[in-house]
Amino acid sequence: MTIFLNVRLTIFRHFDFIWSVPIFDLCNEVTDKFSDMLPYKNLIVIDKKSNVAVYKQLALQFINLIQEGKLLPGAELPSTRTLANDLQLHRKTIMAAYNALVTEDWIDNLPRKGYAVSLRLPVVRPRSYNTNRLGAYKGISSFGFEKLETVIYPSVSLAHSRIVVNDGFPDISILPAEAIIKEYRNVLEYTTLNRIGTEWHAEGSPDFRKSLCTFLNQTRGMDIGMDNLLTSRGAQMAIYLAASLIIQPGDKVVVSDPSYLLASMLFERLGAELIRVPVDEEGMCTVPLEEILKNNDVRLLYVIPHHHHPTTVTLSVQRRNHLLQLIKAYDLAVIEDDYDYDFRYQYDPYLPLASGDHGGNIIYIGSLTKVLGTPFRLGYMIATQEFVQSAAKLRALIDLRGEVLMEQTVTGLIDSGELARHIKKANKLYAQRCDFLSDLINDELSDVVDFTKPTGGMALWLKFKPTFPLSKIVKKAGTMGLAFTGSVYNEDVNGRFNACRFGFASLQEEEMKEAIHILRKSADSLVK
Amino acid sequence: MTIFLNVRLTIFRHFDFIWSVPIFDLCNEVTDKFSDMLPYKNLIVIDKKSNVAVYKQLALQFINLIQEGKLLPGAELPSTRTLANDLQLHRKTIMAAYNALVTEDWIDNLPRKGYAVSLRLPVVRPRSYNTNRLGAYKGISSFGFEKLETVIYPSVSLAHSRIVVNDGFPDISILPAEAIIKEYRNVLEYTTLNRIGTEWHAEGSPDFRKSLCTFLNQTRGMDIGMDNLLTSRGAQMAIYLAASLIIQPGDKVVVSDPSYLLASMLFERLGAELIRVPVDEEGMCTVPLEEILKNNDVRLLYVIPHHHHPTTVTLSVQRRNHLLQLIKAYDLAVIEDDYDYDFRYQYDPYLPLASGDHGGNIIYIGSLTKVLGTPFRLGYMIATQEFVQSAAKLRALIDLRGEVLMEQTVTGLIDSGELARHIKKANKLYAQRCDFLSDLINDELSDVVDFTKPTGGMALWLKFKPTFPLSKIVKKAGTMGLAFTGSVYNEDVNGRFNACRFGFASLQEEEMKEAIHILRKSADSLVK
Repeated sequence: MTIFLNVRLTIFRHFDFIWSVPIFDLCNEVTDKFSDMLPYKNLIVIDKKSNVAVYKQLALQFINLIQEGKLLPGAELPSTRTLANDLQLHRKTIMAAYNALVTEDWIDNLPRKGYAVSLRLPVVRPRSYNTNRLGAYKGISSFGFEKLETVIYPSVSLAHSRIVVNDGFPDISILPAEAIIKEYRNVLEYTTLNRIGTEWHAEGSPDFRKSLCTFLNQTRGMDIGMDNLLTSRGAQMAIYLAASLIIQPGDKVVVSDPSYLLASMLFERLGAELIRVPVDEEGMCTVPLEEILKNNDVRLLYVIPHHHHPTTVTLSVQRRNHLLQLIKAYDLAVIEDDYDYDFRYQYDPYLPLASGDHGGNIIYIGSLTKVLGTPFRLGYMIATQEFVQSAAKLRALIDLRGEVLMEQTVTGLIDSGELARHIKKANKLYAQRCDFLSDLINDELSDVVDFTKPTGGMALWLKFKPTFPLSKIVKKAGTMGLAFTGSVYNEDVNGRFNACRFGFASLQEEEMKEAIHILRKSADSLVK
Repeated sequence: MTIFLNVRLTIFRHFDFIWSVPIFDLCNEVTDKFSDMLPYKNLIVIDKKSNVAVYKQLALQFINLIQEGKLLPGAELPSTRTLANDLQLHRKTIMAAYNALVTEDWIDNLPRKGYAVSLRLPVVRPRSYNTNRLGAYKGISSFGFEKLETVIYPSVSLAHSRIVVNDGFPDISILPAEAIIKEYRNVLEYTTLNRIGTEWHAEGSPDFRKSLCTFLNQTRGMDIGMDNLLTSRGAQMAIYLAASLIIQPGDKVVVSDPSYLLASMLFERLGAELIRVPVDEEGMCTVPLEEILKNNDVRLLYVIPHHHHPTTVTLSVQRRNHLLQLIKAYDLAVIEDDYDYDFRYQYDPYLPLASGDHGGNIIYIGSLTKVLGTPFRLGYMIATQEFVQSAAKLRALIDLRGEVLMEQTVTGLIDSGELARHIKKANKLYAQRCDFLSDLINDELSDVVDFTKPTGGMALWLKFKPTFPLSKIVKKAGTMGLAFTGSVYNEDVNGRFNACRFGFASLQEEEMKEAIHILRKSADSLVK
């Protein structure tokens, strides 16, 4: 009986294809003496244009055949002459490959028999990773990962959607790409690249931190020095670093209700017990917060004062002052997440909490990702020098050297004024889009959703009325080509809100029209 | 009495300077009624070319003055007419700034008195971060950071060194910079940027993982699919992710002696108890390892088979096979750190352990940082699909979206064959430098150091003879302009080795000559 085996051939660097090859004549037991009759001409593909030496390609492909179980221990290989003829290669090349395989004990050169696959190989089993067994990884620490599943792996395929509504991402089409490429080119100059490659600053690139300090002091009414600043891969890493240093398992952490999901999940992963404080039109409610602080030993407060995530409200002056008083009275550790500060459409001059009086208690976290776009992951943490140095050490263990290349590139954008120009331009555009979407929803969907127009940021928080369960709306809209990525708060995830964020900053007016049109149709289909 | 105060002025985006300004007449109490006589013309600097509106610049600078305590509560501000005249601005601009400050409760518009700093402000204390108090951050988790101090903050200034010997970094001068810029430009095209900005793949960019799969299967005799691959910020993050999932406080982790410092520190930070196994000329000694496995409940083995860090030895075939047997027999969790695989100067065809038979137990970690240079932080982890998905979830909590921009750029380099060409070129150059440095040390320093020429990698492991204490040598060399970054194992750090890594890959022959010359002189100075 002849067995046909599907052989996956990977031609160097370019193609994968499947080939049905007759392999063995089977009669009760596998016999290997025919292995030198394997169709090597088909099985082995040499790419002469490749940079890998031909003999190495040959050796590697033999190793693959052995590992895949196509050449079993004891199998005889064709003579160098035969194989050279088959493959149209020089005999010396075949010799070099066989010698390499002998050196590494894959094959033996046997007297009078020629080359054969070694019998002393450990039983090679193909595809060690192609297994579902947990093996040594039974019981790995997957605590807190359950909810992440639905967040990371969305149910609606983006590839098949005409319109994708995100969480509030910037519009990548207005990015000053040429200016970025110019700065990137400067950074790749030998002297710069050599300098940033040799130096190691666990707190982040000094050039970047210097320019960022000036930017932050100017835009946020701060007065910090470089020693107060650590740069990171996006705000998320900064939150991770701060929270990991602060939280011990069992600690109580206060967050708003609702709050930024990935921060809550992270705190829970670190073992925190979350206490939730409501959010209203003036932001986090500080009176119930004070009650909580009186009655609990709270380790950390996580707060988002500007364009709160997900609800988009901004903390009022009264609440801001009350919160600063509480921070002092309870000597409270605080993470202030100010991811969206740079986008304000009315004159809305609330400074960060961190610019107030808090005796160093507030760890201020921000990001340039909302300025430049999601692929540009650049965050930062502002804290006392002592805390920054601890965070830098933890960062070194997680992410040795940080993102010096992007940091240097963006330094150029800050110093040339390009970043400030871009923020100004983006503010103008996003403000228009915020108006447009708000008007559109008021006109088209006022019976379906409630929302309050935010003073800044990149998203609306759409609260669907109870007659319109969000999970059904989203599912229906998905069938009509509208996908939501990001914060959808339905029964699966923080279900009691029946609300979602609708990022307007990256959408053209026509796209917003179509998205609202689809939501309208989804809503109508539920009522019928 | 007139007080002179040093006022730091930050002119927008460019300069910082200190100005001595007479501020208050003090007679027992601070009187603020002269505050409208403050030299605003000097204190406030408007940058008309800036993109920040002039009224905003003005408002922010007033806020700064209030926050710095230069304008105390109740202090009267100059009239709009006076200030307009002083600053040569339109009165409406001053009005806009004052109105903004009133809106935000920084100042009041008092009947018959004009504008004055609000009395209802919380007592603004300048520079909350300029404090040494630990406050809320007493007892933050700095466990395991002690040893990191000397690693992160080196004692010798690099800026004042003529030659810097690193740990084994690639030569950045041979980087295909134009090809990288070309690929970077392609990635910044709207469609690509929009796609990678919209999609979210916690395991890393699918394009990159696909190309990397082919590269790894071809070069390392593996047979993995995309689902087995997670990309990360350098190998360090991959080690962090794997170790964090596996290690619980109190777990026993086996490492070599010596081992890669930052991995050991990370394991200790996670609460592991380290058990150390000696390394000899054939790599990690597997016989004592077997003894350890017999007598201990070992949670994890960390191993570096190729060009072991720091000692540069490669695991022999016998040890490799023994290790694979032990992994199976004890169903052992293993992190294989193969940071340096791509650089081999003799035909040295040992495949990674991960290409062998281990039933999915080996987590294989590698990096492109050694190929492209330290600023290019790109690492990866190979594991079973199940483990990769857990690691992806943890990565999302630490570093939301990963490094898509660089991943896409390097995808282009892999697909065009540029990366393979670069590796080939680098191998040739580094092999020459390895020979050159080895010969040089044999000629010049054989009475001072012992070393074994490695079969690949980017560094020599120089074992100084007992008469030459490394800490003294390094200190003396520092005074002559030679600095070591990276792995110096003297009494401060893993002291019993009196050895250091000498990276040759990035040094010109003249530089190596001078470095060895300085080491010679340092050694001589100790003998005298």
